[in-house]
Amino acid sequence: MDKLYLEDFSAGQRFELGRRTLSEADILAYAREYDPQPFHVDREAATASIYGGLIASGWHTMSVFMRLCVDGLLLRAHSMGSPGVDSVKWPAPVRPGDTLTASLTVTEVRPSNSKPDRGFVRNSGRMLNQKGETVLAFEAALMIRRRPA
Amino acid sequence: MDKLYLEDFSAGQRFELGRRTLSEADILAYAREYDPQPFHVDREAATASIYGGLIASGWHTMSVFMRLCVDGLLLRAHSMGSPGVDSVKWPAPVRPGDTLTASLTVTEVRPSNSKPDRGFVRNSGRMLNQKGETVLAFEAALMIRRRPA
Repeated sequence: MDKLYLEDFSAGQRFELGRRTLSEADILAYAREYDPQPFHVDREAATASIYGGLIASGWHTMSVFMRLCVDGLLLRAHSMGSPGVDSVKWPAPVRPGDTLTASLTVTEVRPSNSKPDRGFVRNSGRMLNQKGETVLAFEAALMIRRRPA
Repeated sequence: MDKLYLEDFSAGQRFELGRRTLSEADILAYAREYDPQPFHVDREAATASIYGGLIASGWHTMSVFMRLCVDGLLLRAHSMGSPGVDSVKWPAPVRPGDTLTASLTVTEVRPSNSKPDRGFVRNSGRMLNQKGETVLAFEAALMIRRRPA
């Protein structure tokens, strides 16, 4: 099957991107490298914090979404990267053992004004935990190749 | 020295957060785990792409900023996490060997309306490469504890 071009996307489309369970080891590994704040890397300090226990870095949560999005959508599309992201929110914390389920809903599709070979797919990304709570919500744009004439 | 409270921040303050050089191995390690698109993990495919060579995942770039921000500011402040981020842009790609320098400028400080123990420090985050090109720009809010009465 050919990969998806810009013309294969339309507003209202929803892509289910699968799920992943985060272990405490996963949370610690990311946080020790990129976000070593006490409530991400120190179980005791985290318990005493406003979070009451270890939570994942918000950028780890975003990184996990990205992996699900690459595996579930971008590797079967003519993806050319992204110009940016808006309005990233983490409404609920991610804790060890949480299972996160990701989806992406297309909100707008438009060709590039300046580059005829590509266009933009605006979308809403969401990730929920096993209790149905939203742990990540954002608006983004994907750059996708147009189908050759 | 006591850690920084909300009252120690003010609009216009600028924090220099230091720098980090990203190797090809660094770029591949993040991308293989979280963003395995060809232009992030496959040197040959990347050379044939619009980027002309391997580039770092935008979320890796953000993660590197976060590490510099934790080491350079958050570990010496009463940081309580972040409610969200707006307007993330990657104006230029990050390539192997690039040295990235991060800074954070405070744009607004305000106490929480609902929780008297904390407040919000709105800020602009920026990261530049060794040529002075901006590779990351975003607006964010930090949640910081207020000084006890």
